[in-house]
Amino acid sequence: MKKFLDEDFLLSTKTAQRLYHEYAKPMPILDYHCHINPQEIYEDKAFDNLAQVWLGGDHYKWRQMRSNGVEETYITGDAPDWEKFQKWAGTLEMAIGNPLYHWSHLELKRYFGYEGYLNEETAQEVWNLCNAKLQSGLTARKLVEMSNVTLICTTDDPADSLIWHKKIAQDKSFRVQVLPAWRPDRAMYLEKADYLDYLSELGTVSGVKVDSFGALLEALRKRMDFFGSMGCKVSDHGLAYVMYEPASDDELEQIFCKKRSKEHISVKEERQFKTGLLIALGREYHKRDWAMQLHYGVKRDNNGKVFAELGPDAGIDCINNFTPSAELADCLNALACTGQLPKTILYSLNPSDNAAIGTILGCFQDSGAIGKIQQGSAWWFNDHKVGMTEQMVSLANLGLLGNFIGMLTDSRSFLSYTRHEYFRRILCELIGGWVENGEYPADEKALEKIVKGISYNNAARYFGFVKNP
Amino acid sequence: MKKFLDEDFLLSTKTAQRLYHEYAKPMPILDYHCHINPQEIYEDKAFDNLAQVWLGGDHYKWRQMRSNGVEETYITGDAPDWEKFQKWAGTLEMAIGNPLYHWSHLELKRYFGYEGYLNEETAQEVWNLCNAKLQSGLTARKLVEMSNVTLICTTDDPADSLIWHKKIAQDKSFRVQVLPAWRPDRAMYLEKADYLDYLSELGTVSGVKVDSFGALLEALRKRMDFFGSMGCKVSDHGLAYVMYEPASDDELEQIFCKKRSKEHISVKEERQFKTGLLIALGREYHKRDWAMQLHYGVKRDNNGKVFAELGPDAGIDCINNFTPSAELADCLNALACTGQLPKTILYSLNPSDNAAIGTILGCFQDSGAIGKIQQGSAWWFNDHKVGMTEQMVSLANLGLLGNFIGMLTDSRSFLSYTRHEYFRRILCELIGGWVENGEYPADEKALEKIVKGISYNNAARYFGFVKNP
Amino acid sequence: MKKFLDEDFLLSTKTAQRLYHEYAKPMPILDYHCHINPQEIYEDKAFDNLAQVWLGGDHYKWRQMRSNGVEETYITGDAPDWEKFQKWAGTLEMAIGNPLYHWSHLELKRYFGYEGYLNEETAQEVWNLCNAKLQSGLTARKLVEMSNVTLICTTDDPADSLIWHKKIAQDKSFRVQVLPAWRPDRAMYLEKADYLDYLSELGTVSGVKVDSFGALLEALRKRMDFFGSMGCKVSDHGLAYVMYEPASDDELEQIFCKKRSKEHISVKEERQFKTGLLIALGREYHKRDWAMQLHYGVKRDNNGKVFAELGPDAGIDCINNFTPSAELADCLNALACTGQLPKTILYSLNPSDNAAIGTILGCFQDSGAIGKIQQGSAWWFNDHKVGMTEQMVSLANLGLLGNFIGMLTDSRSFLSYTRHEYFRRILCELIGGWVENGEYPADEKALEKIVKGISYNNAARYFGFVKNP
Repeated sequence: MKKFLDEDFLLSTKTAQRLYHEYAKPMPILDYHCHINPQEIYEDKAFDNLAQVWLGGDHYKWRQMRSNGVEETYITGDAPDWEKFQKWAGTLEMAIGNPLYHWSHLELKRYFGYEGYLNEETAQEVWNLCNAKLQSGLTARKLVEMSNVTLICTTDDPADSLIWHKKIAQDKSFRVQVLPAWRPDRAMYLEKADYLDYLSELGTVSGVKVDSFGALLEALRKRMDFFGSMGCKVSDHGLAYVMYEPASDDELEQIFCKKRSKEHISVKEERQFKTGLLIALGREYHKRDWAMQLHYGVKRDNNGKVFAELGPDAGIDCINNFTPSAELADCLNALACTGQLPKTILYSLNPSDNAAIGTILGCFQDSGAIGKIQQGSAWWFNDHKVGMTEQMVSLANLGLLGNFIGMLTDSRSFLSYTRHEYFRRILCELIGGWVENGEYPADEKALEKIVKGISYNNAARYFGFVKNP
Repeated sequence: MKKFLDEDFLLSTKTAQRLYHEYAKPMPILDYHCHINPQEIYEDKAFDNLAQVWLGGDHYKWRQMRSNGVEETYITGDAPDWEKFQKWAGTLEMAIGNPLYHWSHLELKRYFGYEGYLNEETAQEVWNLCNAKLQSGLTARKLVEMSNVTLICTTDDPADSLIWHKKIAQDKSFRVQVLPAWRPDRAMYLEKADYLDYLSELGTVSGVKVDSFGALLEALRKRMDFFGSMGCKVSDHGLAYVMYEPASDDELEQIFCKKRSKEHISVKEERQFKTGLLIALGREYHKRDWAMQLHYGVKRDNNGKVFAELGPDAGIDCINNFTPSAELADCLNALACTGQLPKTILYSLNPSDNAAIGTILGCFQDSGAIGKIQQGSAWWFNDHKVGMTEQMVSLANLGLLGNFIGMLTDSRSFLSYTRHEYFRRILCELIGGWVENGEYPADEKALEKIVKGISYNNAARYFGFVKNP
Repeated sequence: MKKFLDEDFLLSTKTAQRLYHEYAKPMPILDYHCHINPQEIYEDKAFDNLAQVWLGGDHYKWRQMRSNGVEETYITGDAPDWEKFQKWAGTLEMAIGNPLYHWSHLELKRYFGYEGYLNEETAQEVWNLCNAKLQSGLTARKLVEMSNVTLICTTDDPADSLIWHKKIAQDKSFRVQVLPAWRPDRAMYLEKADYLDYLSELGTVSGVKVDSFGALLEALRKRMDFFGSMGCKVSDHGLAYVMYEPASDDELEQIFCKKRSKEHISVKEERQFKTGLLIALGREYHKRDWAMQLHYGVKRDNNGKVFAELGPDAGIDCINNFTPSAELADCLNALACTGQLPKTILYSLNPSDNAAIGTILGCFQDSGAIGKIQQGSAWWFNDHKVGMTEQMVSLANLGLLGNFIGMLTDSRSFLSYTRHEYFRRILCELIGGWVENGEYPADEKALEKIVKGISYNNAARYFGFVKNP
């Protein structure tokens, strides 16, 4: 029996252990997609206690506390931090098999040196230990540096001033690169109540009066120029599903015009608008050699009562299982058929899409980049041992696992870099298992290249980040 | 190599074995969902031979016999019982890896003490042994009592008199609680030819003239009062999929009116009616603190030839893979947004829905109950080692496995309680494996709580059954 | 640690090893579905080098080379064979976990005696070794004979003259049966630009003027008579999905008439036409006791740029995840309800359909044949260890694995018979594992019957091929 979370956690064979400790573990971290607030990095945010770090904005944990029958006051409400933490400690015990159980304990071990396990009985000792550490200098920057991170991509709206990115870049005391990533969801979601307000905002920052679909593109292009000047190399889209409903330029202008006149937009028109905008942006990404991330398969804000109280990102999102592979393929083809498909990373929240995505990748690969079309690492609700293993096995079955660009945190927290460790252990367990089972030769050179590649080198090559752009 | 079906069947680690034998095995059985006929309990049904017990109504076995090319006369026809049994014995040998192979042998071992395995050669000895036992007092009640069952919920139509439940409750010689469960499918399926007849029936038993949608609800409420007085705490709905097509009260009344006038009901109207009725009933369940079971993802009675001969439940049902998660989430939200969502248990027949369900649960949990929204145990066609394991792993990945209310038989047979044993072995194998692999601490107190909880205690707490209501 | 690809490759238990080496390995191969060109058999095609054999038409490999950023000139272009082979060797190293890694090395070992592994460094030695063997008599027929193949079904259009099948049958020097299989896709795809040309072609070979839907059926019946006279016992359909949109005979005639007048055909009409034709053909198959293969869940030719250059089968196909189980069940029922459902084999490209298919099988089994309705072996993109295992586990969970008709190559290559070896190893690993884990008795007689059955005997019984028809 292995000890809980020991040195060889998740590594059951000698080869897996060797691959992890020799090749995967020493590699730095390139976190190409996260939701960290760059202001918190610049200001080097400090924390009073573990509840602030862990429960402040982590809707993964909120969901589990609600599942344990905890009252909302102890989750997002006014209860004292210590009491919230106690409730979380009591919840965690029931989370057997959940990635939060592993993440939480990896974080306690790596950042706070805690070797036990957290439950209602140990809550007090964990609270005391961690708070002392937090209060003695375990700040945002310190956590990032401890984690051997070389580069962070945040997630930013086109209208964002990127002021904090600029300040960080100018601050020579912090050597980790913090780059913006382009997330134009607000320009895409024309069904939202504040869409016209957003257009005004975009007009102001871009200096382009956004009074037509063409002007919208022009404004976005100006902002892409600015983002590019700040080192941006990655875009990102959040979508219910990837759709393909083609329309002419005239039709797109008419839909935009209707929206500005506050007329009703039909489902078909909404699909046309989103398709048209995504394709237009995709061509821009291709021109700039930016990668295009498509995150889809999500239905958000499902509980009207909670949403009314807490707004978005409150732990009330779910998988949308309407994710037609035919439309995804057609959408990518609309870019590929003119040679304008950018590097693309596909993530579906629905794990049943793994195989469909894996077969779509292969249709659009070309010599534009090694592993040009990628299946993104197991995302959000799939970000656990089973989900990661299934994503990598599917990718290996259908494509070239060796070219996979690997893990990202997708997190708002400065403690989440242990998810890279978690991922690398799972990767090495998988590959090591194949080698020990005679399914791949014990070719040390190839294995080193593959493990280091997926841990770090492939992403570095793929995105082509440049120091001091 | 392990012996077939030995003491540690399905238990490959020491921890798994210990968890099963010490914690899971001794727990009683709370079978909160089955299709047993309460009359057979009251009358303490006796059986002449094993064919009657096994092949009388078990469409799981019928399907496999047909798959083996057996003629219908030996399945549901007039062939002598012994010959039917022989055909089943010959079929079973080909069922390697099928849960029927395990269930059948667990039943032979636990209820009849047979230690071998059944095939064409051993058919005679099994037949003789089992028939002798059956004829010497192995009756319905005896089988239930041997199985350490404390409580059974049957499945009952709102118009049912519950006369057998009443008689059983009054019979002090039988100490197992047998409670009704509310299954108003016939009130929901307005597309059926006998719908208007059913309304009359319901009118008669409820004393409410069912001449409007409002009157239908009133009649159902009266019957719910009666079911409640008989100890009912659980409802159940069988659905092709969970839909959400909202309609006003007026629209619902108009649809009902059209149905009564035998006018054509459109697909949209059928969806509106079913949505409206489910939401109205959901509110009632919430008021009464009943749990709402939603069984969906089924397409029934697919073979017209067999259906014409045998009617429903003839082994000709399949998975319906149109199960939109968006509509499920919207339907639950229609109840949650007014604070009227009852305790809910979701079961899809499509195992690809596991992850979507797991993410939906988390959107609607609240402090109304611990584990208020549950994913039901792997159901029907998924009721095997792989299906149960996948359901529990998915639940663990996405929620709190520790709060899972666990297994039910869903069976018409008095021998099916071994399915609880089967489930508990699989549960302990899973949890024991995690502990031995260092993925959860060897925390005996927590493990005992979790294993006993999922085996029995969680269900007892969740439903809140009361002795002698 | 096991050596790469040793004698017990993929066989981890003693029982698995014994089952494979004693029962599975010695069985001959009945390849009931492939895409080999019968002319190449008759002419006993010879090969200059390994690039011709491996890269000439293998779009599986093309996809992976593109995934590795290889330029098209080295894939389907004019680069010299040796350079193409080098690029493939460099690609293969990254294909860890991919079936191509296993297939390629099994082929190198079994047909060329190469014991190492292929990468950029060993490319030259592999090239020299294999080319020498190829040039010294390792021809098409030799490869087939080395593989212990007894029978091959090719894939043939109804208009095909079957001249090569005739010549092979008359050539007494070649003892392997090579039979045609009936693939009337071109008669079904009325949306294709060349549909009317195809009708002319069909008219010419059948002697029936195809000027109505009835005449189309008549022409096809004549060709089926001819195919039957050549020993054909298997049909095959390639479909985006199995649909059910019923229409009257009159409606079908009208749709056909519109098509001939080059009028627009609506989506509904296309669905009606395809449904009507499939049902009509299904009845013919039933009458002739042919098996009906339905291959579905595919979206083809997705990359417009590549398609324009290379045409179909260029490695640009993907999974279509719109595969409604309800329509599949209804379509089969349309045949079953009149007792005219032929033996049917269902293959979906979407592995998420495994369970739905498994439940549909059971609805339509009858005493017409043992295992009358089959789930086909893991197909195309699923043709790997995980896909095959999942297909067999699903089949075992839901039906009778013992009656499974097993593997086919689905290949254009004469080296692909090692896929049968790959399959049999995976089969024996699965069954052996169950026996060692106490999930099936160590009943040698039953195990031998099951393993030999799935390897060869079941298919031989199922199709009922006759020597010298």
